[in-house]
Amino acid sequence: MKSLPAGWESLCAASRVMRFIDINLRGVGQVMFQDNPLSGALFIAAIAWGSFAAGVPQVLFGGLLAVVTATLTAQWLRVEPKSLRAGLYGFNGVLVGLALATFIAPGPLLWVYVVLGAAVSVVAMEATARVCKSWDMPALTFPFVLVTWLLLLATYGFAGLSGTALPTAGVVEPFTSMAATRLDASLFVQATLLSISQVFLKGSAIAALLFLAGLAVNSIAAAVAAAAGAIVAVITAHALGAESDLITGGLLGFSPVLTAVALGTVFNQPGLRVAIYAALGTVFTVVAQSAFNVALTPLAIPALTGPFVLVTWMFLLPQSRAR
Amino acid sequence: MKSLPAGWESLCAASRVMRFIDINLRGVGQVMFQDNPLSGALFIAAIAWGSFAAGVPQVLFGGLLAVVTATLTAQWLRVEPKSLRAGLYGFNGVLVGLALATFIAPGPLLWVYVVLGAAVSVVAMEATARVCKSWDMPALTFPFVLVTWLLLLATYGFAGLSGTALPTAGVVEPFTSMAATRLDASLFVQATLLSISQVFLKGSAIAALLFLAGLAVNSIAAAVAAAAGAIVAVITAHALGAESDLITGGLLGFSPVLTAVALGTVFNQPGLRVAIYAALGTVFTVVAQSAFNVALTPLAIPALTGPFVLVTWMFLLPQSRAR
Amino acid sequence: MKSLPAGWESLCAASRVMRFIDINLRGVGQVMFQDNPLSGALFIAAIAWGSFAAGVPQVLFGGLLAVVTATLTAQWLRVEPKSLRAGLYGFNGVLVGLALATFIAPGPLLWVYVVLGAAVSVVAMEATARVCKSWDMPALTFPFVLVTWLLLLATYGFAGLSGTALPTAGVVEPFTSMAATRLDASLFVQATLLSISQVFLKGSAIAALLFLAGLAVNSIAAAVAAAAGAIVAVITAHALGAESDLITGGLLGFSPVLTAVALGTVFNQPGLRVAIYAALGTVFTVVAQSAFNVALTPLAIPALTGPFVLVTWMFLLPQSRAR
Repeated sequence: MKSLPAGWESLCAASRVMRFIDINLRGVGQVMFQDNPLSGALFIAAIAWGSFAAGVPQVLFGGLLAVVTATLTAQWLRVEPKSLRAGLYGFNGVLVGLALATFIAPGPLLWVYVVLGAAVSVVAMEATARVCKSWDMPALTFPFVLVTWLLLLATYGFAGLSGTALPTAGVVEPFTSMAATRLDASLFVQATLLSISQVFLKGSAIAALLFLAGLAVNSIAAAVAAAAGAIVAVITAHALGAESDLITGGLLGFSPVLTAVALGTVFNQPGLRVAIYAALGTVFTVVAQSAFNVALTPLAIPALTGPFVLVTWMFLLPQSRAR
Repeated sequence: MKSLPAGWESLCAASRVMRFIDINLRGVGQVMFQDNPLSGALFIAAIAWGSFAAGVPQVLFGGLLAVVTATLTAQWLRVEPKSLRAGLYGFNGVLVGLALATFIAPGPLLWVYVVLGAAVSVVAMEATARVCKSWDMPALTFPFVLVTWLLLLATYGFAGLSGTALPTAGVVEPFTSMAATRLDASLFVQATLLSISQVFLKGSAIAALLFLAGLAVNSIAAAVAAAAGAIVAVITAHALGAESDLITGGLLGFSPVLTAVALGTVFNQPGLRVAIYAALGTVFTVVAQSAFNVALTPLAIPALTGPFVLVTWMFLLPQSRAR
Repeated sequence: MKSLPAGWESLCAASRVMRFIDINLRGVGQVMFQDNPLSGALFIAAIAWGSFAAGVPQVLFGGLLAVVTATLTAQWLRVEPKSLRAGLYGFNGVLVGLALATFIAPGPLLWVYVVLGAAVSVVAMEATARVCKSWDMPALTFPFVLVTWLLLLATYGFAGLSGTALPTAGVVEPFTSMAATRLDASLFVQATLLSISQVFLKGSAIAALLFLAGLAVNSIAAAVAAAAGAIVAVITAHALGAESDLITGGLLGFSPVLTAVALGTVFNQPGLRVAIYAALGTVFTVVAQSAFNVALTPLAIPALTGPFVLVTWMFLLPQSRAR
């Protein structure tokens, strides 16, 4: 659909302030591959809803501060203008800001950390994009994952920053389910919706609907792929006996959702063979998400979208692939 | 020698079933770099012997199911026919199947897991090969190691799959040998043979002899390199004071055996300088194997052939090197 | 300044022994990017002072044995002569030797280990340089970090080698400072100087002054960048609430010092924009150093200069960057 209010582009061309706003909105939209300011605006609405509903308004602020910092850094570094205008230097920044404000207790040093992380995310994006270009691969959210992992790990050595919402460390131990849990219809719907909202680290069904709307205004196919990916992920995780709280909280589904959108619509032409291929990648991303969760247990940091990046690169690299 | 029954190739050219069998046999042969169906058949005999002798027939089944799945997946993905026929899309699959059936308790979900892992191993192979091509490097068993690590790690988050034969997790602690252990002649021979059979995750001297026979029918040099690599590995591990059970079980020697075959015969022309260079790589693979074992301690997964992949890449990349 | 005694080059051209000495001195100088035998000689004096002052003369011996082994290995491998003469095959070797002799208890096997590590560091250098060449990146000290990590990890599996000075393993736990610590002037100076001497794993202010002299004889800018990098690192670490002992021991500053020299003088033309960019990289290297320290906690190995390598690559790769 790519529907934009008539005259939006000429408005941006005429005003530097409007252009700056446009770039930042597209930056938020690019978290789910949508180069559309309306998608970005709806995503911000979803983040706002999710943040206020959970009583953590600072998370919204962290995300906005980060995307603006990232855009300013990109301008200072004189990055390629076309990519800048498409928001490609903003999506890692906004995720860094959301993640840091989610996992670390508020305070002056948190905002210093957000600005530092957002600025470095632009450098990391340029670095990743340059390496990836050798194989025509997209950078995906690798810069976000790398920079945020380093920033979060480092807090365990800094008294000034405490990671209040970080997992507790331990060595790896076999998981045994408490009891056979049933995934009834309402839990299934919740698990599916939260798998979508957790792409932006939010656990809210309303936010999920706003995210789907943000996708749909730019690409119906992307919205369908996101929903289908979430359903496939929930079924896979349940069939393999994953922990119920992780499933219903959307914590095993957000990476697979991104894989489904990327493999099913963004980087391949939709079709039957592509759908099968994307489904295989989506199922394997559930496995990878569980694997990352386990592997990071001794380090007490979250997997973020690392599993999505790994599996999507793995499934995009083959030159013989379903398409 | 490359001895094949006369008419084998024309038989395969005439029959799709025979061609399919040929591809799968070569796939098993390629685990040790042998593009020869007879090598593959002898390797399968060795796997069968080792599996039945150890009372785990399901491991043989896992390997066979996996190699067939991998070949079918490769055909569906329309990979390059010449590589397909040489078995290059099968060797990671068969190893995934053997490893999963070795480390995870039998059950319906195990077979789902084997099929999933074997299919994804083909995607991982294509991805790895594409990246490696930039420096004319072979993919080696990296796809097997990556996919199997993810699948095994993930089991710790899934109640449906229990890793009965996986190591126990802990933090790293200094190793102290119980007492000075002597490596007498019979233990030395056992350690050497099991270093060869553990390439296929088997601890059996008879299987080792079958593996050596499988190498010899295609390349005497490869069989000699495997035996020499095993001897170098056992001596190195013993001299450095490694745990006796690991040495005599072949668990520090299987990666070095692969390094010796790769550096000594497959990717370099045999000769004195190459032998010295391959020996250096083989010795360092023992160090890397111990390092991987230690590094993976908190994660409770085995090193598999990761050390072989790392060291062999490191020793193949230099353009100034002994050859 | 690049001041060399008149006739040094003709002396080296005339005598194979002098040439060999020159290559090894430059190898030591290249640890801090200085292709100058006088820098190397002053660095060796600093290492000698630091080793004898700390009562560990074997560390000096380890470094010298390693650099000579690395140079001989490079000659045997017939590496490119120009790089060899510039000392580019020695700096990883000398660091491997210093690190092994610092962390592992003395004994015959230690020297075997040093020779093995130094020889393999040359292979690792060639391998890293080849991969890095695809993006015109320098190998930095990645070969040293990789080889030393493997060798140190492996000791936990070998009774013959005990890592007496290695950290103790544990799972990650939040750090809480004992009490508000003040960083007075004398501690600040100590922290700054030791951040420089720890580049060579030495905790000595006198050694630090000798290292600065070694830099200054070849490049005043490099000496200034090293001092400025150390100051920025100490302030950053203190502001974030890092452990006082780590700061005053220079253990959070040595990687940032290298980042400052690399980004501020070696690979960019000094200037205001470059200084800001290098400062951002230096600050982020402090975060990365803390992150690596935390991440390696369960494995009981030191971070070495891994954080410097990661951040410097990240900041050198962008084609749109301050310069």
